[in-house]
Amino acid sequence: MTVALVNALARPLVESKTPDGIEPLWFETPEELLDLAPRAEIAWLDMCPPPLAAQAIARMDKLVWYNAMSSGVDWLPLDLFRERGVTLTNGAGIHAQSVAEFALLGMLGMAKNWREVVRAQDRHEWLAEPPGKLELLDAEVLIIGAGEIGQRIRQMLLAMGSRVTMARRNPGVGELGGEEWRSALGRFNWVILIVPSTPETRGLFGADELAAMKPDAVLMNFARGTVVDQDALLAAIDSHHLGGAFLDVTDPEPLPRDHPLWARDNVHISMHLSGRAQDALFPRGAARYLENLQRFQRGEPLLHRVDLARGY
Amino acid sequence: MTVALVNALARPLVESKTPDGIEPLWFETPEELLDLAPRAEIAWLDMCPPPLAAQAIARMDKLVWYNAMSSGVDWLPLDLFRERGVTLTNGAGIHAQSVAEFALLGMLGMAKNWREVVRAQDRHEWLAEPPGKLELLDAEVLIIGAGEIGQRIRQMLLAMGSRVTMARRNPGVGELGGEEWRSALGRFNWVILIVPSTPETRGLFGADELAAMKPDAVLMNFARGTVVDQDALLAAIDSHHLGGAFLDVTDPEPLPRDHPLWARDNVHISMHLSGRAQDALFPRGAARYLENLQRFQRGEPLLHRVDLARGY
Repeated sequence: MTVALVNALARPLVESKTPDGIEPLWFETPEELLDLAPRAEIAWLDMCPPPLAAQAIARMDKLVWYNAMSSGVDWLPLDLFRERGVTLTNGAGIHAQSVAEFALLGMLGMAKNWREVVRAQDRHEWLAEPPGKLELLDAEVLIIGAGEIGQRIRQMLLAMGSRVTMARRNPGVGELGGEEWRSALGRFNWVILIVPSTPETRGLFGADELAAMKPDAVLMNFARGTVVDQDALLAAIDSHHLGGAFLDVTDPEPLPRDHPLWARDNVHISMHLSGRAQDALFPRGAARYLENLQRFQRGEPLLHRVDLARGY
Repeated sequence: MTVALVNALARPLVESKTPDGIEPLWFETPEELLDLAPRAEIAWLDMCPPPLAAQAIARMDKLVWYNAMSSGVDWLPLDLFRERGVTLTNGAGIHAQSVAEFALLGMLGMAKNWREVVRAQDRHEWLAEPPGKLELLDAEVLIIGAGEIGQRIRQMLLAMGSRVTMARRNPGVGELGGEEWRSALGRFNWVILIVPSTPETRGLFGADELAAMKPDAVLMNFARGTVVDQDALLAAIDSHHLGGAFLDVTDPEPLPRDHPLWARDNVHISMHLSGRAQDALFPRGAARYLENLQRFQRGEPLLHRVDLARGY
């Protein structure tokens, strides 16, 4: 029997479908988690606070496979996993629809300055003129990071009539590879960051990149707050070089109440809600866990394995 | 020479491209408009208030062709045009992108309850949980009215992963014809009204139709306020049968400041901004006018002619 330590929140979704040969242990409290941790060969802890998860993982001497529901795994002890030969699988893709819908919402909301419409309704005031008149039709959009989320955003934008360019490590036809996107920044009305969070992408977008953007263009960040130099962003906003910024992620999170970004007219902060703005997160996560559990039992390679050296 | 009376706002866009044989007269003030009206054989008055346009049209004894930039022509004297044999062309289609973008924005905004995110940012408050968790993926959407706007919305929604059903007078394969949509209402999560405003569609959607909708479904109106029985809508909202309503159009417009719809949690009012939330409205309108002006000169049938009996 292989022991799988799983958050009891997932129990209704996975218990009846757990294959023979797996002994599930469910935890509800931090104490139970820490008590049971040393027995875990498989672990799925999602919805635990990261510091507690880290504490529990440190005790998991028998761990073989750690299942994460998040796409970003920068909050997990990748070095520890590497040393101990633990396989890490992540949730890449299960947030794709939700994040992509948020990206479209953010773009349309900024294009039409929807925030002013919301505020006007709150005042019971009929606006005579549209507060925003941009269209996504024919907009030039650069998506940096071409994983499942970037691809999904691309597909949606093409149907809006936008012109979409993807930047990725290994580019296909018409895509930008390596650092090519840097010299192309001046072409785009919208730049969307959806790269994985790794040491390499930290500070990827700083003062130089912001200065190279087209005047009045918008930067959107769905990656990690640390991917953008936030002080440089604030300066670019205040210089009116940028049209605006849409930040699903910030550094730190939560953004402190007195941070200047909150109050800027053309900065939209969506509180890292994008991936979780869906009803299907846990069912999708459970389905993926169960599929990998079957593969684990059959000795097949797991799907959505994280490259522990690259960090995604 | 044929005399064309045109709002001077359009002058920079059309003057240099007006074909020989057309004598353009430009008006800037109501007085100029009313003075010049009796000479007009062609008229393009857009951006005039409707009552002033009606007053001017009444004086246009020589009028042959009236060019409107709006899609809806219910504010024009269709009977008068019919009696005098005036050809009416409209702007069907030039608002399609803008209205469709607004429809997507409205759907995504309601799905994610974006309004609460806007309000939270205004309070500098980091929300811990998404206030809305619906996705458009797999949503069942009924679009009643399959003109250019409805088709554009459909195309965008298909890329979001929604399942879209069109209802139209002359249905194609898989579409609902005539009144078939009435008995199908219970199947849909979203119902979008984008029918033309005619005597036939007045009160199209009343208490029975609202009651037939799926519980928690959303009604969106991009047609005319009078297409929906607004008292019945308010009752359906207050009974919590509906999930909400998105009203680009209301009855009357502007909606009075003390109207109860303003303050309902799940009613979104977008102040008939959708078609005008674009920079390209006048250029698109001018291009269409010029194309028809060429056709007029060559004696060819004009494009986008309104059927004066049907009213669209």
